[in-house]
Amino acid sequence: MRSASCLSVLGMAVMLGFWVNGSDGESICGAYAPGDIIIGILSSVHTDIKDLHFDLVTFVQFLASIHTIEMINDSGFLPGLQLGYLMCDPCGHATKAIQCVEQMLSINGSLTVLSDYSNFCPTVKTFLGERYSETSIPVARLLSLHKIPQVACTSSAATLSNKLRYTSFFRVIPSSKYQAQALAKLIRHFNWDWIGVVSLDDDYGKDIYEQFVPHAEKERICTEFHEVIPNYNNVKQHIKEVADIIRNATGRVVVLFLRIHHVEMLFEEMIKTNTSRTWITSIPWSMSRFLMKMKGINKVGDIIGTTFITGKIPGFEDYLQNLRPRPGARNDLIMEYKQMRFNCSQQSQHTSPLACNVTDPQEANDDYLLEAVDVTEAYSQRVAVYAVAHAMKKLLQCNDTACSGDTNFMPYEVKCML
Amino acid sequence: MRSASCLSVLGMAVMLGFWVNGSDGESICGAYAPGDIIIGILSSVHTDIKDLHFDLVTFVQFLASIHTIEMINDSGFLPGLQLGYLMCDPCGHATKAIQCVEQMLSINGSLTVLSDYSNFCPTVKTFLGERYSETSIPVARLLSLHKIPQVACTSSAATLSNKLRYTSFFRVIPSSKYQAQALAKLIRHFNWDWIGVVSLDDDYGKDIYEQFVPHAEKERICTEFHEVIPNYNNVKQHIKEVADIIRNATGRVVVLFLRIHHVEMLFEEMIKTNTSRTWITSIPWSMSRFLMKMKGINKVGDIIGTTFITGKIPGFEDYLQNLRPRPGARNDLIMEYKQMRFNCSQQSQHTSPLACNVTDPQEANDDYLLEAVDVTEAYSQRVAVYAVAHAMKKLLQCNDTACSGDTNFMPYEVKCML
Repeated sequence: MRSASCLSVLGMAVMLGFWVNGSDGESICGAYAPGDIIIGILSSVHTDIKDLHFDLVTFVQFLASIHTIEMINDSGFLPGLQLGYLMCDPCGHATKAIQCVEQMLSINGSLTVLSDYSNFCPTVKTFLGERYSETSIPVARLLSLHKIPQVACTSSAATLSNKLRYTSFFRVIPSSKYQAQALAKLIRHFNWDWIGVVSLDDDYGKDIYEQFVPHAEKERICTEFHEVIPNYNNVKQHIKEVADIIRNATGRVVVLFLRIHHVEMLFEEMIKTNTSRTWITSIPWSMSRFLMKMKGINKVGDIIGTTFITGKIPGFEDYLQNLRPRPGARNDLIMEYKQMRFNCSQQSQHTSPLACNVTDPQEANDDYLLEAVDVTEAYSQRVAVYAVAHAMKKLLQCNDTACSGDTNFMPYEVKCML
Repeated sequence: MRSASCLSVLGMAVMLGFWVNGSDGESICGAYAPGDIIIGILSSVHTDIKDLHFDLVTFVQFLASIHTIEMINDSGFLPGLQLGYLMCDPCGHATKAIQCVEQMLSINGSLTVLSDYSNFCPTVKTFLGERYSETSIPVARLLSLHKIPQVACTSSAATLSNKLRYTSFFRVIPSSKYQAQALAKLIRHFNWDWIGVVSLDDDYGKDIYEQFVPHAEKERICTEFHEVIPNYNNVKQHIKEVADIIRNATGRVVVLFLRIHHVEMLFEEMIKTNTSRTWITSIPWSMSRFLMKMKGINKVGDIIGTTFITGKIPGFEDYLQNLRPRPGARNDLIMEYKQMRFNCSQQSQHTSPLACNVTDPQEANDDYLLEAVDVTEAYSQRVAVYAVAHAMKKLLQCNDTACSGDTNFMPYEVKCML
């Protein structure tokens, strides 16, 4: 019974070449590769639904995931089996993230609705992502219903640790609870006891601020001001106002619970007026090369932060320098990146100075991604993909030469192995 | 194009008698009545997925919604048109709430997945509910994607006011922002400046606590302790621990941001040890007749709170005393209530002392609901249903004798009228 229903779903997917469309024939997915087992990837390579800003850091994280999948396939880690993937870009937007998941779980523009998902057998067996807690939380609600595991690499909101609210959610980084504690201890270590806090009005900003307050109190750190920046509306104006508050405050230490592009906008304001402070944060933007390269960045003062696990991914630098989709795979994001980098007529901040010498942008390559992004930050993607691959190896009872299990398994079976 | 696609969906729904099933033939919906326009109702009549505790307050709120719909139909408010409804019970659980919505929007166990929902034309045109912010928030995410308006009567989390995050959400009560401010002012009014706070670890508890803190600080109110009670796991043990903290604290004023059944459990602990405090809250449980009737409730001290708008719903008391589904309607909840109240062999706390004299529980009636519940609390349901009906009246260009508009409208069109 179980195998029969699984096979019919897979059959449909093979017909579509694993590419999914809505009922209206439109697809919002950006990349896929066929395989015996399909992993879903949610990755906000674009940071906004409207202006479609291309985020190189997320792009490299996404590439780290598919590179790791390809390495696993090449190494015969799951003997006789190939992992495939289907990727969709929620553009950092929660509603779009739900739409991505619905589309990735649908067949011919239709999502099966059940009263019990224990025997639900979609093509996508596990999801990786999303980057932001704001988008991971609604996805976690939806995937908990469908009993499909989700492994996130950067969503740190403490609430996601609650296994009764988010039954299918896993992550390879610690909860913001520990980050908040570490930051409070760091601030106390330097004997700073008079700080300002700026946080984002989203599920990440609210969560980490909530975690931070009791630790700050415990360390006898006083908060001079706490300002909240909206995620979407009128952001520039709000940042200007917050910049004024920072300039007029007496505290010289400011804690930032923001996304990197808000930090960039805030620093632009600070640089304009030569305002120097000590900046503290919990997310890896403190390592961001974009910030380090901002004109006048030396004027903003010191930046201190924690970061997630980093490491070297074997072969990844080579992969980035010779970037192209594997035969049989489709990757609209790589195409878009190459147009942006090597198309002489589409000048952007990322366009290569040699772009006008390039005949086919899709065939061109250079080491720009290695320069622009700290690729060791993408290490947690490798950890996440391997966690999923190990779970599947156990589930499919693989030995050194073959996997005896049925690849048409139910997603909740992977969950039990994670 | 638009009418054609709408008609086909409606045609399917009529075939099903507006009753929806999952692909597996199971329905999780609890009540429906046919009509020209269907309103979805999300109502957690059961407070837990596992023990299925029947919550009379939510039951009466649900009945107030369908009573108002019937009154609107009888009055010819939408001349020539009848409103129908489809109700599903999320049991206070966010994941189940998403499942309810998916099932209510599906046709023959299948949900249409689109890349743009502007022309999405499901049978259910608007949703009422859910009761709790914890369940309303994920529903709001999903309905924002599908561009279907949602009107809530009791979900007060401030975050739901953010129109960019929850584009389809409306409510007929104020945000917890104002409730939090009112409570802080109330506490200051009595010159209490040393309080304890107990909040729930869900989206309501986190939200209102976050709102309350700055107002309390502004009013120079100091917090001796802030304890968080989990919503699902090991609740009894946590409440025992919190009860100990309250007993040992020096503060005599405790603010509770909890659901009513947690308050009941906490008060049981307090009564056991004759612990008297002043209790302050923002939700209408302060009016709950169950609490007032608890054995030994006088020992817990004073209870002060704010409440939402209340009022008399014309004809509602009569309706409750003569409770039965209208011809053509199906209502599993009324059936369940009547079994609970009038089935001699199923003794519960709600069973009538005259139950064993009743021949057919489904035909029996009494005034128990009027005694057990303050039915004026359900007034906001009437306000919500009328808000939706007025929007439809405008959309369908109704005059005193007829509505000239097409009833196969897209849900986002109602949204524009709300």
